Amino acid sequence: MHPYFKMKTVIRVPFEDIDAFNVVHNAKYFCYFERGRVEYLRHLGFMDDGDESLKNLEVAIVEHYCSYRKPARFDDDLSIHLRISYLKNSSFQFQYLITRDEESSLLTLGYSNLVFFNSVTLKPKTLNPELRDAVTQFEGDHLGQMTGIPEL
Amino acid sequence: MHPYFKMKTVIRVPFEDIDAFNVVHNAKYFCYFERGRVEYLRHLGFMDDGDESLKNLEVAIVEHYCSYRKPARFDDDLSIHLRISYLKNSSFQFQYLITRDEESSLLTLGYSNLVFFNSVTLKPKTLNPELRDAVTQFEGDHLGQMTGIPEL
Amino acid sequence: MHPYFKMKTVIRVPFEDIDAFNVVHNAKYFCYFERGRVEYLRHLGFMDDGDESLKNLEVAIVEHYCSYRKPARFDDDLSIHLRISYLKNSSFQFQYLITRDEESSLLTLGYSNLVFFNSVTLKPKTLNPELRDAVTQFEGDHLGQMTGIPEL
Amino acid sequence: MHPYFKMKTVIRVPFEDIDAFNVVHNAKYFCYFERGRVEYLRHLGFMDDGDESLKNLEVAIVEHYCSYRKPARFDDDLSIHLRISYLKNSSFQFQYLITRDEESSLLTLGYSNLVFFNSVTLKPKTLNPELRDAVTQFEGDHLGQMTGIPEL
Repeated sequence: MHPYFKMKTVIRVPFEDIDAFNVVHNAKYFCYFERGRVEYLRHLGFMDDGDESLKNLEVAIVEHYCSYRKPARFDDDLSIHLRISYLKNSSFQFQYLITRDEESSLLTLGYSNLVFFNSVTLKPKTLNPELRDAVTQFEGDHLGQMTGIPEL
Repeated sequence: MHPYFKMKTVIRVPFEDIDAFNVVHNAKYFCYFERGRVEYLRHLGFMDDGDESLKNLEVAIVEHYCSYRKPARFDDDLSIHLRISYLKNSSFQFQYLITRDEESSLLTLGYSNLVFFNSVTLKPKTLNPELRDAVTQFEGDHLGQMTGIPEL
Repeated sequence: MHPYFKMKTVIRVPFEDIDAFNVVHNAKYFCYFERGRVEYLRHLGFMDDGDESLKNLEVAIVEHYCSYRKPARFDDDLSIHLRISYLKNSSFQFQYLITRDEESSLLTLGYSNLVFFNSVTLKPKTLNPELRDAVTQFEGDHLGQMTGIPEL
Repeated sequence: MHPYFKMKTVIRVPFEDIDAFNVVHNAKYFCYFERGRVEYLRHLGFMDDGDESLKNLEVAIVEHYCSYRKPARFDDDLSIHLRISYLKNSSFQFQYLITRDEESSLLTLGYSNLVFFNSVTLKPKTLNPELRDAVTQFEGDHLGQMTGIPEL
């Protein structure tokens, strides 16, 4: 277990994600980040209410960053390691490390800066208190401490 | 101009659609069919009303078929040839031929069986009369005549 | 266990596959079929050789068909049920049923007609005898018996 | 014409790129950037040699960044404005602005840090001199001058 990244989820790379150079297409990693975010919410108990749980996904991405270190390939079992690094009133940051399971070497590293918003009015909204409490408890002392991405 | 397929639209194959065998991925053709349907509606004047024009896209796909004859490749300029082959009360069929521009040889052939539906109630709805009239006039005598896909 | 479809694999629908009508996009089902084919080969022991196992994926899709009965939605756990319905010299057919786990109701039904080919020469090639034997043994008496898709 | 971004290409947003919140999915912008890069190379005469021209696409993406200002929507005609901001021995940077045509307001802003590599050996390679000369001439005095992304 990584000391900062306490949550991970696994993805097997499907053929459809492979590009003409036989590696995972660069844009697909942002979809892997997204699947990680959903599983992080589930891990904290916020994907259990069916359609209601979608309310927790009303987040707008403000900024995206990805650093590509080594390519992922067809049929790789990848681990997406996630953490929330800070939580403000309506904005927060997810950080990601992607590793290939059998070797635990770092393939990809990234972050998303996000804002909660109301999908009807399109205005930012305050993070709901239950989710704030759950994240604060889960991330512990590491929350808000640093802005860089701690590597493996 | 093909005698049956009176409408066409052009797509340049982007790198993202190419798979590990250096050809357009099999699922992407159904996206090309979809872009063709939107341009067909535009050609008949049914994409001019902004968000209102989306109402004309409330169609559910009931069946999809595609026959792959030759692969399309990166940076190909493809022509999507379209026709509506029949129109019933709330259902209708689009047929497609895809050719590569420079040689006009047939790459792909397919059809979609579709039903108009109300996206709120999820019930089938009657095709709006203005669209019915426009399609009937555009397709002319070929409408409803045959069920097979006329090739080039 | 379905009497004809003896193999299944599970997919959780990610956010990226959902379209503007809040259902899985029509083209994505062909990607789900593809992931099923890979897991079918793995189940029979033909995905264990790293890059060599990719040779077993040198198949060209000749025809694709999908019937959409009910929509799949975000975060659904879908089961892809697969069978090979016939095996000729270099061609064969995969059939698919997709169900939603909690209710086992049929969402989607489809087939792929495929041809083994050499990805360098692009010529059809004979199905390798080990794979033929494994499929024949796995599918048993149902292989080659019927051409329709047996529903649930 | 933007003083720094001298090249642009246009994309009409297809239905397949729209997510459940009725906006272009966040990962798709990286595909739009990619289409822009191909058209930039074509504009400079480096996509004319068929398969040979693919050699000019043997670039590995090292870092990706995107800032999302306003969402793009279905059927929008988007302009992708591109520039190469610096050229080193084997690495260089593309910068992008995406605007919606009718209002020319800024939707998205991003950059890619890239390295030319040999797709067989997977080693970095020196940028070919013809491409270097063409870029240097096209970008003019702005090449290498600044590292930030000049906005509209």
